[in-house]
Amino acid sequence: MNRPHHVFIATSLDGYIADAKGGVGFLDTFPMPENNDMGYYAFMDRVDALLMGRKSFETVLGFGVAWPYTKPVFVWSQTLSKIPMELSEKAFLVRGNLLEVEEQIRSKGFEHLYLDGGQVIQSFLQADKVASMTITTIPVLLGGGIRLFGSMVNPTAFRCVRSTAYENGMAQQVFERAIDIQPK
Amino acid sequence: MNRPHHVFIATSLDGYIADAKGGVGFLDTFPMPENNDMGYYAFMDRVDALLMGRKSFETVLGFGVAWPYTKPVFVWSQTLSKIPMELSEKAFLVRGNLLEVEEQIRSKGFEHLYLDGGQVIQSFLQADKVASMTITTIPVLLGGGIRLFGSMVNPTAFRCVRSTAYENGMAQQVFERAIDIQPK
Repeated sequence: MNRPHHVFIATSLDGYIADAKGGVGFLDTFPMPENNDMGYYAFMDRVDALLMGRKSFETVLGFGVAWPYTKPVFVWSQTLSKIPMELSEKAFLVRGNLLEVEEQIRSKGFEHLYLDGGQVIQSFLQADKVASMTITTIPVLLGGGIRLFGSMVNPTAFRCVRSTAYENGMAQQVFERAIDIQPK
Repeated sequence: MNRPHHVFIATSLDGYIADAKGGVGFLDTFPMPENNDMGYYAFMDRVDALLMGRKSFETVLGFGVAWPYTKPVFVWSQTLSKIPMELSEKAFLVRGNLLEVEEQIRSKGFEHLYLDGGQVIQSFLQADKVASMTITTIPVLLGGGIRLFGSMVNPTAFRCVRSTAYENGMAQQVFERAIDIQPK
């Protein structure tokens, strides 16, 4: 089994990646640590491209900031009809099932993907194609919203290889797939 | 606001404290680290008594091992009619709402409680009476089960004060209530 992909995402303490209205304001609850990118740039160096769903793509567009990605972004959507003109050389629509999408992207020369968004992450976890997950915890209890992890048919095991508490109160854990361990 | 209580619990990576059948076999997925109690005894030293729900109580009884607690255990249940005779000096039924239960236990001289079980923990979080939570992550994705955190009306903020990756692949984070921070 080939597991070339990686996750880098922030969740609330109760496991939500967005609140009940789809908002991500909780990400700004704590001031960011000074002179510390929490591993983001090192992570970006290790991937070839990003793959996100329509909701994540629209959330990024909604931030109203300059396009933040220096690597190609593939948007996996069955409903989105086009990418905004100004991003035509930076973001690309892909359609089809997981294997088709992965093959389309690989055929363009991109092997290691940064998976973003709940549905994309869940799909790749279910297909057991995720090598590592870096999960930053914003330690707030939202009480409801969009969950990072969903229902899965086949339990899988990871191993925590790094766990950090930042001065600002946030935390981060890095998990790698533990292929030699079977969940009980 | 008085927040004298503490949580010490293990969850799966996707936030479950029991699987879809109520089982906790996943807790044994990883061999325990050698000569390391993961903070359990130091934690127990800081509390006066335990408060758990009926399900947690029955889960402990179901383990078929010697009674594991050296401090009084209060079982918060509206349906359980009695405690097994052999535990009559170690475990005690309490009834009523949260404030009544807390007052009954306090009147016996126990101030700082180790809160155990999803419903008990959620009730005390909702009442904002939890000072700290030590959450051990068993890094498996169960895909379904009984969640540690439930719906909450009032979002609350914590702060991660310690984050540890153990050699065996498990992880632990300690959170303290951040009363000066408001979730966004």
